[in-house]
Amino acid sequence: MYLFEEKEIKKYVSINQEIIQLIEEGFTKLANNEVTLPPIMRIDIPEHNGEVDVKSAYIKGKDSFAIKISSGFFDNHLLGLPSLGGLMMLFNSKTGLPEALLLDNGYLTDVRTAAAGAVAAKHLAKASVERVGVIGTGVQARVQMKALYKVRPFKQITVYGRMQERIDKYMQEMEKSLGVKVVQADSIEEAVKESEIIVTTTPSAKPLIKGEWMHPGLHITAMGSDAEHKRELASDCFQKADIICCDVKKQVFRLGELQHVIRDGVMAKEDKRIIELGEITSKRKEGRTKDQQITICDLTGMGVQDTVCAAYAFDRLKKAEITVR
Amino acid sequence: MYLFEEKEIKKYVSINQEIIQLIEEGFTKLANNEVTLPPIMRIDIPEHNGEVDVKSAYIKGKDSFAIKISSGFFDNHLLGLPSLGGLMMLFNSKTGLPEALLLDNGYLTDVRTAAAGAVAAKHLAKASVERVGVIGTGVQARVQMKALYKVRPFKQITVYGRMQERIDKYMQEMEKSLGVKVVQADSIEEAVKESEIIVTTTPSAKPLIKGEWMHPGLHITAMGSDAEHKRELASDCFQKADIICCDVKKQVFRLGELQHVIRDGVMAKEDKRIIELGEITSKRKEGRTKDQQITICDLTGMGVQDTVCAAYAFDRLKKAEITVR
Repeated sequence: MYLFEEKEIKKYVSINQEIIQLIEEGFTKLANNEVTLPPIMRIDIPEHNGEVDVKSAYIKGKDSFAIKISSGFFDNHLLGLPSLGGLMMLFNSKTGLPEALLLDNGYLTDVRTAAAGAVAAKHLAKASVERVGVIGTGVQARVQMKALYKVRPFKQITVYGRMQERIDKYMQEMEKSLGVKVVQADSIEEAVKESEIIVTTTPSAKPLIKGEWMHPGLHITAMGSDAEHKRELASDCFQKADIICCDVKKQVFRLGELQHVIRDGVMAKEDKRIIELGEITSKRKEGRTKDQQITICDLTGMGVQDTVCAAYAFDRLKKAEITVR
Repeated sequence: MYLFEEKEIKKYVSINQEIIQLIEEGFTKLANNEVTLPPIMRIDIPEHNGEVDVKSAYIKGKDSFAIKISSGFFDNHLLGLPSLGGLMMLFNSKTGLPEALLLDNGYLTDVRTAAAGAVAAKHLAKASVERVGVIGTGVQARVQMKALYKVRPFKQITVYGRMQERIDKYMQEMEKSLGVKVVQADSIEEAVKESEIIVTTTPSAKPLIKGEWMHPGLHITAMGSDAEHKRELASDCFQKADIICCDVKKQVFRLGELQHVIRDGVMAKEDKRIIELGEITSKRKEGRTKDQQITICDLTGMGVQDTVCAAYAFDRLKKAEITVR
C-alpha cells in the first residue's frame, strides 16, 4: 500500500483542465447509471463540536474506488489546529485491497469541489464573462476562482467578506495568482449586481442572496451549503431562475439549498427546472441556451468526485515515483 | 499517525476476558444512549462480485472512534487472494485527526465478532454447559469457540461442515488449542440435538436449522447472516424461542435473521420477546432465568464493537512501543 502526505500530493495535483475534464466525466457517468453512490455516512460528536462525513462511490470500469473521511471539529482553533481535516483511501475495484492512503488534510476535496464549480459554470454561465464575484474569503473562495478561470477567463473578481484583514489577504493573493483585478464589495448585493457569475462559499445558516438582486444573464454556483442547517440563497432566488441545476437531486433535497426551498413550499421536487449537472454533461438536457437566462447550481459534493480525484492523484503520484512507505 | 500491520496486531491482541468485557461495556453504552451509531455504508461492485461495508460508531467519552472498511470480493480465490479483507482507522474524538491505521485484514473484526458471541452466551446460555456445537469450519467457527470457552468452559465441540478436509483440520486445530474433545456431526440436526449452545457461522442463503430440532435449554447464536440475502435459521426457530436477542434491532430487521422472520409474518417487530443484548448487559431486561428456556441471539455486527476493539488494539500496541511509521 502506498501512503502519501499532503506536501507530496500538493506538489503533483493542482487545479487544471485535466481534473476539470475528469470531474465532468464523473458527472456524465453518474447520469449514465455507471456509478454506485451510497448515501453519505455522518458521525456527529456534539461534545466536541465535531462532525465527520464518509463519502464513497464506485465508477463502473474504474480500477479503484475511494472512501473519503472528512472532518469538521469547530473547537480545534482553541488548540491551534485547523477545523477541517480529512483523508482519502483508494481500494482496488477487482480485489477490494487497499492501494493508497492519501493524507491530504482535505486538499483533494478542495480541488474536486472547485473542479465541479468549473464544470457547472462551463455549462451554465454565459459563454463570455468578464466580471465574477465570490462570497467568502476562505480556501474555496480561492480555488473556485482558480478553477472558474480555466473555463471562463474573466477580467475581474468582486469579493465580499466580513473581515477586512482576510479580504485584503484574499485580494493580494488572487491578483498575484490569477493576474486579474480584484475589487472589494461593500455588500453582498453590490457583489451580485457587479457580477455575471457569483460563487457562494460560506457556511452560512441564513440566506445571503436575495432574488431581487438577480439580473438577466447571472449564474450562481452555491457550493457552501452541504448540511441540514446551512443555506446561502433565499427561496425567491429560485423563483427567478430559468435553470436550477444540482449535483445529485437525492442529496441536495436533503442537504443542499433546495431542501429549504422545497420545505418553504416555493418549489416542488418535481419542478421541471431542476436538473442534475450530469444530465447536461451527458447531453440529455441543455444547459444555458441564451445570454439572458438566470441559472443556479446547487452543489453538495459527491463521492464520485472523490473517487475521480483520488484516482487522478494516485496516478500522478505513482508516475512521479514517490517512495512507497 | 501510527500504522500497524496484521502481524503486529495479532501479536498484541487476542481473544481474552478483557476484550469480552470491553465489548460487553460497548453494548451497555449503546443501550444507555451513549453511542452515535450511523447506518452501515454499503458499496456494491457487482462486476467483480465484490461488496464493501463501512461501519463506525462514536462512544461518548472515548478518546477515539473507529471507521472500519471491510470487503468481500468473492472472485479473489481465482487470483490466489483471500476473499475477505479490511482495515480500521482510529480518529481522535476531540480533534478529528487520524491517530492510527490498523491494517488488520479483518483480524480485529474476527476478534470483536467472537467477543460479542461470548457476551451473548454469557447472558443467554445455561450457567453450566458441557457440549457446544458449531456450524461451519472457517475462521469464525474457530474464534467463536475460543471466545465462548472463556465464558462457558465446555468439554466438547460438535462440528458440522461440508468439506471433510476442512472438518479434519478444524478438529485437529481446536482439540489442540482448547484441549477439548471435538466430534464431527453427520448432519446439522445431529449437531443441534447434541449441543446446549449452537453457533452458526456460515454465509448461507437458506435456513440451516429447523425449529423442530430445538430442545429445552438450547441457546443459538446466529452470527453468519449480516446481509439481505443471508439466512441461517428457519422462521419456526423463532416461534419456539423464549428470548430473541439481537445486537441492534434497526439493523437486524434489515440485515439479520429477523428480517426474514418478520417478512414471513411469523413475528412482528413489536414482539416483546425481541430485545437488544445491551438491554440485558445494562440490566434493564433479564437474560436467561431458567435452564429450560430456549434462546436465540441474532448478531449482525456493529460499529460500536469496531470502535471498542480498535481502541483496545491501539492501546495495547502503543504500550508495546511499536515503531511509528
